[in-house]
Amino acid sequence: MAERSLLNQLIDALRCLPGVGPKSAQRIAFHLLERDRDGGARLARVMAEAMTRIQRCQRCRTLTENDLCGICASSKRETGTICVVEQPSEVVAIEQATDYRGLYFVLGGRLSPLDGIGPSDLGLDILERRLGEESLAEVILAISPTVEGGATAQFIADRAAHHGVKVSRIAHGVPLGGELEYLDGGTLALAFAGRRDL
Amino acid sequence: MAERSLLNQLIDALRCLPGVGPKSAQRIAFHLLERDRDGGARLARVMAEAMTRIQRCQRCRTLTENDLCGICASSKRETGTICVVEQPSEVVAIEQATDYRGLYFVLGGRLSPLDGIGPSDLGLDILERRLGEESLAEVILAISPTVEGGATAQFIADRAAHHGVKVSRIAHGVPLGGELEYLDGGTLALAFAGRRDL
Ligand SMILES: [Zn+2]
Ligand SMILES: [Zn+2]
Repeated sequence: MAERSLLNQLIDALRCLPGVGPKSAQRIAFHLLERDRDGGARLARVMAEAMTRIQRCQRCRTLTENDLCGICASSKRETGTICVVEQPSEVVAIEQATDYRGLYFVLGGRLSPLDGIGPSDLGLDILERRLGEESLAEVILAISPTVEGGATAQFIADRAAHHGVKVSRIAHGVPLGGELEYLDGGTLALAFAGRRDL
Repeated sequence: MAERSLLNQLIDALRCLPGVGPKSAQRIAFHLLERDRDGGARLARVMAEAMTRIQRCQRCRTLTENDLCGICASSKRETGTICVVEQPSEVVAIEQATDYRGLYFVLGGRLSPLDGIGPSDLGLDILERRLGEESLAEVILAISPTVEGGATAQFIADRAAHHGVKVSRIAHGVPLGGELEYLDGGTLALAFAGRRDL
């Protein structure tokens, strides 16, 4: 089998999927080619479109193909509260596990001066503008309890205080180093209910 | 998040991958969007091309984007032997694990009258033509030792005998019900070396 056959290119390309080594890449390629060409063709089409068209929401920085995400564009959300998370996947996790119906803000990381990640890399200038312009009652911080997460939370708490907006942090039911998106829904819901003022 | 957002379409479409449920589809989508857009775009491009262009080799019925696969088109193979397998993935497994350098024939299944799978569905008319036209010394059967596999092997053995071509079967080091492509290379090599005449 020639090294650069289309089949081998497909097996190579499949290795960009997380946790997929050479053996499972091969298994996936044969599965699609022999049993689900329609599914593979549809996936290829949607993936190409997603990789070029999905960007950050201009208001909350979560992932969306529109200027505003579905939550920011909705007229049914409670606009007095912003929940600040690190990753877009955490918005999905909170939506699925809790009855929170306010707005969001996605940082995309944590402040880390040593890695050159400053406030504007996390969109904190956009958040500051929202703190000034929107009529907010509360900012809920759902940021991981690490050193960098703590510094990031403190930075946001300072800015919120400057604008007279109350700040809370979700309760530490979240295990240290644990990732929000893999938590069971019950724990995440409890952490929301048990949030306290900063 | 709107139900038919491009992100949700991507998560849906990823479920065509074997073993990928809703949770890992979501994890894959966020991984590609946030950490590897180039890899995702390349995968989409290669997958679209593979799903439309990869067909069966006209001579051996393995998967290829050309009229003839790399093995059939090669001038370096020993043309006196054909190894008959059920699936294209088994060609790859044999190439990787053994020093077999003959040709192949891929059935794509086993004879199963109850399921309406007859000789022509497995390309056995093409194999018969090869038995008549090529100067073959041996046909090696690497077909799983099930009832249907046995009937398929017997069918091919009869046709080969009709054309005066010797038939052998790889040794039963292969566990019953085990799939060739997941066998360790050593066992597969032993099964090849221990083949016996039918
Ligand atoms: Zn938004
Ligand atoms: Zn071929």
